[in-house]
Amino acid sequence: MERLAAGVDVGGTNTVTGLVDAKGKIYGQRSFKTKDYPYFCDYVERLVQDINFLVRQNEGAVLAGIGIGAPNADHFKGVLLNPVNIRWYERGSEPFGPDNMKVIPFVEALKGYFPSLPVLVDNDANAAATGEMIYGGARGMKDFIEITLGTGLGAGIVSNGDMVYGYGGMAGELGHIIVRPGGRSCGCGRRGCLETYVSATGIVRTMLEILASDDRPSRLRNVAVAEMNSKMIADAAAEGDALAAEAFERTGEILGLAMANFVVFSYPEAIFLFGGLAQSGGLLWEPAKRYMEANMMRNFAGMVKLLPSGIDCSNAAVLGASALVWKELMRLESL
Amino acid sequence: MERLAAGVDVGGTNTVTGLVDAKGKIYGQRSFKTKDYPYFCDYVERLVQDINFLVRQNEGAVLAGIGIGAPNADHFKGVLLNPVNIRWYERGSEPFGPDNMKVIPFVEALKGYFPSLPVLVDNDANAAATGEMIYGGARGMKDFIEITLGTGLGAGIVSNGDMVYGYGGMAGELGHIIVRPGGRSCGCGRRGCLETYVSATGIVRTMLEILASDDRPSRLRNVAVAEMNSKMIADAAAEGDALAAEAFERTGEILGLAMANFVVFSYPEAIFLFGGLAQSGGLLWEPAKRYMEANMMRNFAGMVKLLPSGIDCSNAAVLGASALVWKELMRLESL
Repeated sequence: MERLAAGVDVGGTNTVTGLVDAKGKIYGQRSFKTKDYPYFCDYVERLVQDINFLVRQNEGAVLAGIGIGAPNADHFKGVLLNPVNIRWYERGSEPFGPDNMKVIPFVEALKGYFPSLPVLVDNDANAAATGEMIYGGARGMKDFIEITLGTGLGAGIVSNGDMVYGYGGMAGELGHIIVRPGGRSCGCGRRGCLETYVSATGIVRTMLEILASDDRPSRLRNVAVAEMNSKMIADAAAEGDALAAEAFERTGEILGLAMANFVVFSYPEAIFLFGGLAQSGGLLWEPAKRYMEANMMRNFAGMVKLLPSGIDCSNAAVLGASALVWKELMRLESL
Repeated sequence: MERLAAGVDVGGTNTVTGLVDAKGKIYGQRSFKTKDYPYFCDYVERLVQDINFLVRQNEGAVLAGIGIGAPNADHFKGVLLNPVNIRWYERGSEPFGPDNMKVIPFVEALKGYFPSLPVLVDNDANAAATGEMIYGGARGMKDFIEITLGTGLGAGIVSNGDMVYGYGGMAGELGHIIVRPGGRSCGCGRRGCLETYVSATGIVRTMLEILASDDRPSRLRNVAVAEMNSKMIADAAAEGDALAAEAFERTGEILGLAMANFVVFSYPEAIFLFGGLAQSGGLLWEPAKRYMEANMMRNFAGMVKLLPSGIDCSNAAVLGASALVWKELMRLESL
């Protein structure tokens, strides 16, 4: 009898569910379009169908619990708080207007179907960090930081073996550390946040600054601003485009200094970098590591490992979500 | 039978020992000049005499343990690592030269005299945070930050009810977050650290910058640079000196932004400010709070209390050191 955890990746486009064992092996996945279910009750029913389908597919499997990775999750309250890219409505609220649900009681809704199982929700970056701790490179570590580089910059901080949630569950928003007071405008309404520089969108903004200030040729001058993305900059840099290389250098400089400051705060054994931008063949890695060490306080020099995530990138969201279940079961056992 | 913890404040000038009950009431103190005992073994013997003297003075008292607050303490290893202002030697090393002890085995030495009692060492700021948690304003809080403002800036971070020591015990050095890359030189060998701006010495440097850039009159123009201190700046500001007031405004601006960034990291329920500079009659407090909120990420706006330390300033070091014992006993009980 194999105990399997359901990991659910709730995205604005797709909702992907997988069953995962305690070692991170995946036993089947299901997916549907999130927007096909504008009523939250219908959405939950469909999600439960997918979970039950997967359990039935695996003879002898026993569901150990359900972990959900989702944007704007409040782990303590078990809800999503007004996620930007997902809208659900309550029955009776048609026609669908602006009155979508602001607080989405994800855990409560699933507990209605699985009353005796652990059901946990957390934001994507904390789920990624939990995946790293349970299945990945952070196994056995009590203090580490997971940085996820995508459209924005997310982070999960683990200290003394526990996720740092803080008072109210929203700690670790390291993408919103202000690194340049008065700097670039951020979606959060402030200026100079780390993720406006260090992220897939941040490096495009840096590229534009370089194209403005440096008049050397670059093939990226032929790309419309709205079309430009981090992959193009990486490709150009890999082929010797000096300005594209400079964009990675500057991004790594800001990330490296930020990581040196994170170390002063929580002194992790390792910092894991996760996501496409981190994997761009050393382009970001090399300067990020160099500037981290150049800015490191003496006590910590050479002491903190900078590591690639040990989680398979293509299944990371489902793996991270499922890991929430194993972490919770370990916590319950230790009580 | 009253259980009392010994709190030992190890300073470059004095070593102060006090006996403290679990509520923070002090049952007598003893003090001696640290430099009178250049041999570490003699120093420890004298310290043990003071502890035993205090225990005998309190009839029926039972020693619960010994907590030591000291510079450069490694809590996990129980040692002091080459503290700047204190030098001890091993017997046989006379005449006293540069070969002072680099790693001072404080816990091991005291365990030799009190083998069955908990003996703990921690740095001053972590001891202050522990004092806040056991006796002060942080009772009942699981997530808070204690910032101590003295010659430098120290900090103790508590997350999930535990001190954040990180991998190797030296986390929380928030005075050495780099806030101005390439900025003021710091004793740590780098540039732009928070404590070069926000501390008793930092505000003097800021005052000098203002005296250089602003040609309005100030009574501080009559003070030699080497003589100037934060108290003089506070007194001048309190009496309407515009440039001295500006020094507090700028210091509060940097501290406020830094605190807004700390909140993003660990989301404390409260930040406690401790030390003379913090108490200068709202001069630092008011701008620090204003800039903290002005820079706060929306999720946290108005959520984090900025509080004065609830620990009696004059006995804070002994209280904080003694609190290490009660915290350890609570930890042992919870196992």
